Amino acid sequence: MIHCLEKVRETNPLVHNITNYVTVNDVANVLLACGGSPIMSDEPEDVADITAICGGLCINIGTLNQRSIEGMKIAGAKANELGHTVLLDPVGAGASALRTNTAIDLMETIKFDVIRGNVSELKTLAFGAGTTKGVDADTADAVTEENLDRMVAFVKDFAHKTDCVIAMTGAIDLVADAEKCYVIRNGRPEMGKITGTGCQLSGLMTAFVTANPDQKLKAAAAAVCVMGVAGEIGYRNLKDGEGNASYRNRMIDAIYHMDAAALKREAHYEMR
Amino acid sequence: MIHCLEKVRETNPLVHNITNYVTVNDVANVLLACGGSPIMSDEPEDVADITAICGGLCINIGTLNQRSIEGMKIAGAKANELGHTVLLDPVGAGASALRTNTAIDLMETIKFDVIRGNVSELKTLAFGAGTTKGVDADTADAVTEENLDRMVAFVKDFAHKTDCVIAMTGAIDLVADAEKCYVIRNGRPEMGKITGTGCQLSGLMTAFVTANPDQKLKAAAAAVCVMGVAGEIGYRNLKDGEGNASYRNRMIDAIYHMDAAALKREAHYEMR
Amino acid sequence: MIHCLEKVRETNPLVHNITNYVTVNDVANVLLACGGSPIMSDEPEDVADITAICGGLCINIGTLNQRSIEGMKIAGAKANELGHTVLLDPVGAGASALRTNTAIDLMETIKFDVIRGNVSELKTLAFGAGTTKGVDADTADAVTEENLDRMVAFVKDFAHKTDCVIAMTGAIDLVADAEKCYVIRNGRPEMGKITGTGCQLSGLMTAFVTANPDQKLKAAAAAVCVMGVAGEIGYRNLKDGEGNASYRNRMIDAIYHMDAAALKREAHYEMR
Repeated sequence: MIHCLEKVRETNPLVHNITNYVTVNDVANVLLACGGSPIMSDEPEDVADITAICGGLCINIGTLNQRSIEGMKIAGAKANELGHTVLLDPVGAGASALRTNTAIDLMETIKFDVIRGNVSELKTLAFGAGTTKGVDADTADAVTEENLDRMVAFVKDFAHKTDCVIAMTGAIDLVADAEKCYVIRNGRPEMGKITGTGCQLSGLMTAFVTANPDQKLKAAAAAVCVMGVAGEIGYRNLKDGEGNASYRNRMIDAIYHMDAAALKREAHYEMR
Repeated sequence: MIHCLEKVRETNPLVHNITNYVTVNDVANVLLACGGSPIMSDEPEDVADITAICGGLCINIGTLNQRSIEGMKIAGAKANELGHTVLLDPVGAGASALRTNTAIDLMETIKFDVIRGNVSELKTLAFGAGTTKGVDADTADAVTEENLDRMVAFVKDFAHKTDCVIAMTGAIDLVADAEKCYVIRNGRPEMGKITGTGCQLSGLMTAFVTANPDQKLKAAAAAVCVMGVAGEIGYRNLKDGEGNASYRNRMIDAIYHMDAAALKREAHYEMR
Repeated sequence: MIHCLEKVRETNPLVHNITNYVTVNDVANVLLACGGSPIMSDEPEDVADITAICGGLCINIGTLNQRSIEGMKIAGAKANELGHTVLLDPVGAGASALRTNTAIDLMETIKFDVIRGNVSELKTLAFGAGTTKGVDADTADAVTEENLDRMVAFVKDFAHKTDCVIAMTGAIDLVADAEKCYVIRNGRPEMGKITGTGCQLSGLMTAFVTANPDQKLKAAAAAVCVMGVAGEIGYRNLKDGEGNASYRNRMIDAIYHMDAAALKREAHYEMR
């Protein structure tokens, strides 16, 4: 995992983000914090050129519209053609027909390396029209120690079917391919009080996989650990009276200062 | 007022925001800070589904465009059909024909529970094509101790004509229905040096009214008090050398930590 | 330079920004920090009215799309008609055909007072289709003490050809008209780890030139000095564990508190 972080710092991967306008600034600063570089572009006429100069593409459907959906398709096709890393963050799949259908359509037309979402989004994608609703995960669906075996089997199976690394994030994070699953126990529940930690992780993960194309699973898991450890460090660094706005900054700051020693000391994961 | 805050914390209202891309991240973090949850969506094909899973809808015309205006109309109609709370923030009404006309058109086609704006925006809406200009209030129009009786009468009258709660915010805030008006004296002038405190308040207010559907007037006034008190606490928490960027964070942090004791101790209002 | 800052504080210039959604919130807060006021609008039907009530227009193509490009053209024409200050930030010129062609097209149809970009963007505009790629400057192109004479000549020549003030920012900043060039040595390399410092500077510069229409060159150079000095002060104000997210805030805070004494003491520039 340490090696994956170091490769990001060394290679400074340029990541093209087609993402939502809610959390885009934080995504850009997280990418800079980890050692990558961000570019944002969603205009259909612009995206192919922009993706061509990047190493990775992060598609996030958080505030999708007809124009940006077209941009996603063009950029995804170009990134596939060039062999770039491509990640999908299906924000709100299950919350609206457009989001669900767009995510499924993108999965059918673009070869993704990684899909990162919460449990409700991923269940929606796995089982067609979802039974869950909302852009946050349905708590009834959460990964717990009790249902862990079943959930690990689910993400491995979904990874197998999609031929993607699947990163299902929540209180316990699962990052799997068809064979192996990282079970990661980092982070803080208060991270859910910051808007866009999932979007930020998707950007970060795209940089990690782009910088480590030969070990996508490990790189995706490393990104989850970096984010979770940063969430813990940032929380410890909060001063009296500071709340979710300051926490956001302190978490990004912790990514900026993340080093091998901190990651080795604080990342908690096991393989299943 | 304390009860209104507690209801937000207890019920975690989900608020659909069709809002501007300038201040959207802060609106999301304010909603999380107060105990609500934000969703953003402005694509006409997406908004009806998204609004359907929410409890409230906040329409802010700060960076309106033809696509998002269509989204506002569809979402507003759906929210009305479902009996959801709907708030209008007519950002820049009076500053351009499109903004003025869009706000008036929305008021004619959507039943709003609350309209929140500055004095210039609300005068524009009350008197048709406005004589004021700009997205900040014309200082000549400001509510003062001297013209308070007249301004209270204006907001009550406008509340009567529109059958909405009217929240007119400035140095002195007025929140009224046709019968009663809260006159609120909280906040700091330095809040005007942070972009989007009005937008943030509109998001917060939507959460408060959504969580307290049986006392909309009081809930809207409570949101104004929470924002004003947070502005005062955040200001006191500023450290040497900190300016408007840190102030923004400290104000949101103060909303995050706002409790019944602070609100009771520091909210300053009277009824007229 | 001090006079230029004081004029911004005194006259509170209203700046219309057609800018990208990545860094727009920071641009707004920087404008407020320096003493200006921001308005954002990119809808073709809205921009002429909005620009009409402003003093300056800042066009930034960072996340351009077909709709906003049309908005840029309409707003630019209106601003020219009214004799307003107009600045171009050609973000990513050279990184895509659409960005390069749009920047060139805007330069042909709008009279700009200032063009502010990095060396790669400005070389692309000066020499047609660019040989550099990316939205950050190609390090091979950077202004150094060794190539300084040549680069000064380049910006003066480009200023002459375009009849604009040219601000080429990087480790060493050059701000020139056809006759004179400010060579400015302020700022910190860590500013490159904050997303959008260039965009923020473009907004700030528009306010400075708008407030000082009779000395555009000096006003543009003063804006560069203010930004660079704020970057140094903000860096010194960083506490243990703080990284790029906190640095962003501390830099804006430093602009907020910037005064004549600090600017006089810390601005480092010479004329060539």
